[in-house]
Amino acid sequence: MTDGEGGFSFEVLEQDLAGRAGRLRTRGRTVSTPALMPVVNPNLMEAPDAITPQELSDTFGFEMVITNSYIIRRSDRLREWALSEGLRSLLGFDGVVMTDSGTVQSYIYGSGSDTEVDVDPLEIVELQRDMGSDIGTILDRFTTPDTPRAQAERELATTLERARASMEVNGEMELAVPVQGGTDLGLRRASAEAVREMGAKYVPIGGVVPLLESYRYPELVDIICTSKQALGGALPVHLFGAGHPMFMPLAAALGCDLFDSASYAKFASDGRYMTRSRTLHIEEMQDLPCPCPVCSRTDAADLRSLPPALRTNAISRHNLWVLRTELVSIRSAIAEGTLWELVEGMAASNPRMHLAVRGLLKWRGYLATAAPRSSRRFMCSTDLSLARPEFERFCKEMAPSFGPIPGRNDLVLGDHTGAHRPDIVSALRAVYSTDRRVIVRTPLGPVPYEVFEMYPFSQMVTAPEDGLPPGLAAHMLEANAAIEGLPVLDEVAAGMETGTQDGLDTLRVAMIARVQFGMSGGRYADEMLFGTWKDPADLPTRMSLVVSKRTGKLRNVHLRSPEGPGVHVLSLRAEDGLFSLKWEGAVRLHAGSGPDRWRVIVEDDTAPFNGRGLNVFNKFVAGADPRIRSGDEVMVTDTQGVLYAVGRAVIDGPTMVQARAGIAVKVREGREKSLAEAPPSF
Amino acid sequence: MTDGEGGFSFEVLEQDLAGRAGRLRTRGRTVSTPALMPVVNPNLMEAPDAITPQELSDTFGFEMVITNSYIIRRSDRLREWALSEGLRSLLGFDGVVMTDSGTVQSYIYGSGSDTEVDVDPLEIVELQRDMGSDIGTILDRFTTPDTPRAQAERELATTLERARASMEVNGEMELAVPVQGGTDLGLRRASAEAVREMGAKYVPIGGVVPLLESYRYPELVDIICTSKQALGGALPVHLFGAGHPMFMPLAAALGCDLFDSASYAKFASDGRYMTRSRTLHIEEMQDLPCPCPVCSRTDAADLRSLPPALRTNAISRHNLWVLRTELVSIRSAIAEGTLWELVEGMAASNPRMHLAVRGLLKWRGYLATAAPRSSRRFMCSTDLSLARPEFERFCKEMAPSFGPIPGRNDLVLGDHTGAHRPDIVSALRAVYSTDRRVIVRTPLGPVPYEVFEMYPFSQMVTAPEDGLPPGLAAHMLEANAAIEGLPVLDEVAAGMETGTQDGLDTLRVAMIARVQFGMSGGRYADEMLFGTWKDPADLPTRMSLVVSKRTGKLRNVHLRSPEGPGVHVLSLRAEDGLFSLKWEGAVRLHAGSGPDRWRVIVEDDTAPFNGRGLNVFNKFVAGADPRIRSGDEVMVTDTQGVLYAVGRAVIDGPTMVQARAGIAVKVREGREKSLAEAPPSF
Repeated sequence: MTDGEGGFSFEVLEQDLAGRAGRLRTRGRTVSTPALMPVVNPNLMEAPDAITPQELSDTFGFEMVITNSYIIRRSDRLREWALSEGLRSLLGFDGVVMTDSGTVQSYIYGSGSDTEVDVDPLEIVELQRDMGSDIGTILDRFTTPDTPRAQAERELATTLERARASMEVNGEMELAVPVQGGTDLGLRRASAEAVREMGAKYVPIGGVVPLLESYRYPELVDIICTSKQALGGALPVHLFGAGHPMFMPLAAALGCDLFDSASYAKFASDGRYMTRSRTLHIEEMQDLPCPCPVCSRTDAADLRSLPPALRTNAISRHNLWVLRTELVSIRSAIAEGTLWELVEGMAASNPRMHLAVRGLLKWRGYLATAAPRSSRRFMCSTDLSLARPEFERFCKEMAPSFGPIPGRNDLVLGDHTGAHRPDIVSALRAVYSTDRRVIVRTPLGPVPYEVFEMYPFSQMVTAPEDGLPPGLAAHMLEANAAIEGLPVLDEVAAGMETGTQDGLDTLRVAMIARVQFGMSGGRYADEMLFGTWKDPADLPTRMSLVVSKRTGKLRNVHLRSPEGPGVHVLSLRAEDGLFSLKWEGAVRLHAGSGPDRWRVIVEDDTAPFNGRGLNVFNKFVAGADPRIRSGDEVMVTDTQGVLYAVGRAVIDGPTMVQARAGIAVKVREGREKSLAEAPPSF
Repeated sequence: MTDGEGGFSFEVLEQDLAGRAGRLRTRGRTVSTPALMPVVNPNLMEAPDAITPQELSDTFGFEMVITNSYIIRRSDRLREWALSEGLRSLLGFDGVVMTDSGTVQSYIYGSGSDTEVDVDPLEIVELQRDMGSDIGTILDRFTTPDTPRAQAERELATTLERARASMEVNGEMELAVPVQGGTDLGLRRASAEAVREMGAKYVPIGGVVPLLESYRYPELVDIICTSKQALGGALPVHLFGAGHPMFMPLAAALGCDLFDSASYAKFASDGRYMTRSRTLHIEEMQDLPCPCPVCSRTDAADLRSLPPALRTNAISRHNLWVLRTELVSIRSAIAEGTLWELVEGMAASNPRMHLAVRGLLKWRGYLATAAPRSSRRFMCSTDLSLARPEFERFCKEMAPSFGPIPGRNDLVLGDHTGAHRPDIVSALRAVYSTDRRVIVRTPLGPVPYEVFEMYPFSQMVTAPEDGLPPGLAAHMLEANAAIEGLPVLDEVAAGMETGTQDGLDTLRVAMIARVQFGMSGGRYADEMLFGTWKDPADLPTRMSLVVSKRTGKLRNVHLRSPEGPGVHVLSLRAEDGLFSLKWEGAVRLHAGSGPDRWRVIVEDDTAPFNGRGLNVFNKFVAGADPRIRSGDEVMVTDTQGVLYAVGRAVIDGPTMVQARAGIAVKVREGREKSLAEAPPSF
């Protein structure tokens, strides 16, 4: 279902914050992203201190390398070899090969920021194409950070002109078209929009090495976020020249998918030893604080005493292990939904890094744009957590659906960390009534107890209120101002009999559905499912609940019908306390909602396949509710609005509309399956 | 110079915060500390999933293991083997072997907190002795955290009684006598004092596993600091049962030297995979974010699919690599003076960990007690840095010696990060005069420019003021309140000719000496060296400065004499901007100061050796200025006060008085050498 075996495609497989795990395919080869491509210098490849491209693949598992067409061009031997046998033969590397054009190299190798290298912009693209590069790079103008606006603008115009011309000559090679514009965010935005409009499929963010080298991380964050917003979510984005592990988790969290590193070898030749958070010099090290295959078999003194070539080789290997490990950590964190924790942990390693992560507060709207609405855990360790999407979403999406807080007779549960204690639960049940709720004081703000089991409330890991860091404590105080002075549950409940308030469980179902799905056309989802209600006491007549015999926890929600349990509309997921939508639930939400709400609209001729239970591919998506996030429950319809399937979104709505490869929705139930199984078996 | 080949000793080699790198010797074997000893279960040692003690030593480099005498006692075969062949033969391990007595085991292995194991307290000590344990443990009472005070007190009395009795029967085996007392800090203090008074040489802090398991880190910090303050700096301290890497940097920074871990194997048998900051479950992992020899050769799916014994073995190995790496990182950080950065980086990994590190603010007096006064770098990344000893020392020691700030005509340099810019330096020189100084606004507080090159001012790495985290920014604002509104250098200097103020360099020398050495008997060190002065213009007549021809930087300070450059009194160190004291400088400080100031007093019969240039050993130290810190310049005298040598302290004053092994002072110049060389060669 991609553009064919030889084609180029990029799929987003999982999302966390604005970052994602993906898969880049080109000419039948595959690269898992986030990925780092070691820079291979074809002149030095056979030097005794070099790591061969073959080793990069076999030992370290790198699936992609980048090399320099400008260097190859200057050597008759290398050029002829590459042109006749191809780059993979020249490098002895069977993975994906990207080339750059001399632009970035002119900065990295110190020939200055003047990008007028002695080569024709189209000739260098044709050379890359003819050498069989999988992804070639245009000869863009490297705009340095402090280039005056007028000059940066001229340079950008040149870059775009060259890009358009290059796209006529690239043949079957995919073309990397960098976003430039220095530190001028307006120019970066214009550059990214132009690159997207001209149909580039691979986009580096260029001109950032000087910012990385001078620790100007906050500006870099602004550049990445601005560029990414204009590029949208479907394009693979390469942060050109970013090859130190310290900045990689943050860059990945902002949506960078590819990195390259020349520093693993350059650092090594100067005796510089990478760690996650900084670079040490081997001459000053007593021990090697690393368990990699190099460091676990030697010590600092032995490493120092090696002959220079062997020493450089050994440190290069160590540096590659550090880079690879950081990449794997990032991929694991995205899969787990803990990318924020990885970024937060790195923030303490340098004052400028900390400042850059604090700067995310400004970008929390962007971070929340594509971030999944649930996870298994939510760690709130430092004040930096205030930029997490959970805080943004609580205010914008969740709190408005709670209803008036506090209600007239509401009570407060002061310590959210105690909300699972059996005595509290039993006191809660005793006091709940038609016009009395218990409000839990949480660091996010006041939360009605009936939705407390859903993400992110019960999944939040924090210190108790008097142990929160100052920023979080201040936020908690302010966010809970409305419930200040409410009577406290413990004191009130002490005088009451403990018991069971029957309406509480049905109220939980209705309110979780309301908060999870929100509204359409002025009506909340729970009302579409269970009918309009004002008094929680009405709800037990509308639904029947199936509880797990083993755990005693709620599993399924059916509509109550006179003849017994009616159709199954919702199932509660244990991992995040949110509902999975069943076909009969989807039918009701579909009937009650406006034409795009909760919907992924697919091309008419493919909808029947989804109706038979097949997943939805991005390339057939004609439209999608932009509010959809990875992991959300969605309905699949054709362009006429006919409901064909219900399932779970793999990626956010805007990205599934833009993307050409990969899966948009994992279908759980299709129309046909459901029809075949009807009537329900209860 | 230790207690002989067979004896037990502990040397402190390097210090950072309240932590230290050390060397523990027993019966001719040596262990570098901080150290971790894997727990070896003698019953499971030959199981197919176990790592053998031999491997622990050969592959991982662990120099010490701990095993359980209570388990050995219950097996006829093991007991007979250990009694006849010795523990090292039983374990097949040639390193240092420690044993515990069943106390901690009764908690770890789940037999409850009732410490009444079926064994006689003296019998189990004798058994450990007879098996050849290097360090045996008394059968202390494991007081759980929430034991009521009265019971905890009784349990403590029992522990101490058993300790006294055990010290009669331990023979040549060293005896570990744990500090107990639950979470009652008064009892912990009393317990530590008693343990110290009874002459224990190896001190575990016991009863902490329940606190670690329930993340009660802040209480644990209080227990460790309280116990350590009572124990003093010379004893090796073992945090019993602390075997997860997350808490180790903080524990080490508070002065814990030894750790033990059973969890590497216990976790592995449940499929739990350690990382620095948390524990993952192998069933839930997609990738292995670790470059260790296990993880670099396999992947998560392969690891899962191994037969149970092989899987446990592989995960155990991985866990051991993680532990070993954390230990090496801690040792490297102590050697480098970057232990704070390691602790600060770990703080973000968990809300309770963050709370514990924030709790250090309360203990910053303790942290400053033994921390060196200089380093090569001083990172100020997060608000946690406010607990660093540098902030404590700035207020208590440094600022009072600056003189009145601001003076009547003083100017302010607003951005301390610009103080090295050539235009600023030249403007500074132009404006300095007898009654005008330039005050640099730093995050610590206002600093006269003339001392700005000394640690920690120039060595501080921070964001600019508007990029500081809120706590540091607030501290900076408050600390600099006195210079608010002073005229700013840039504006004033703009109207002045640039030039050279001759007195500035001599003022720098006098003031750095004053701030570095402080005062004695109401007189500052610089006055003892250069005579009383009020007007900086007097100083150029008192000293002559030797400047490096290569770098143009100040190197040596001589007293000016009519016949030309006089005696050499001080040399400036490039790495931290502090002075090394020359013999002639020491003679003048000695003459001007009270009887203990800056002094290490050695036994009279050993002083002549130091006079010949030999280092000072702790065991001959009769007294020391308690204000001495590792790295300080000190004078060595005999008990009559005769000056024999000048050098640099290896450890802090109180510890050198208590310690019986190791070096107290590295002597740079001794009396005899100096006499032989006189008259000075200028």
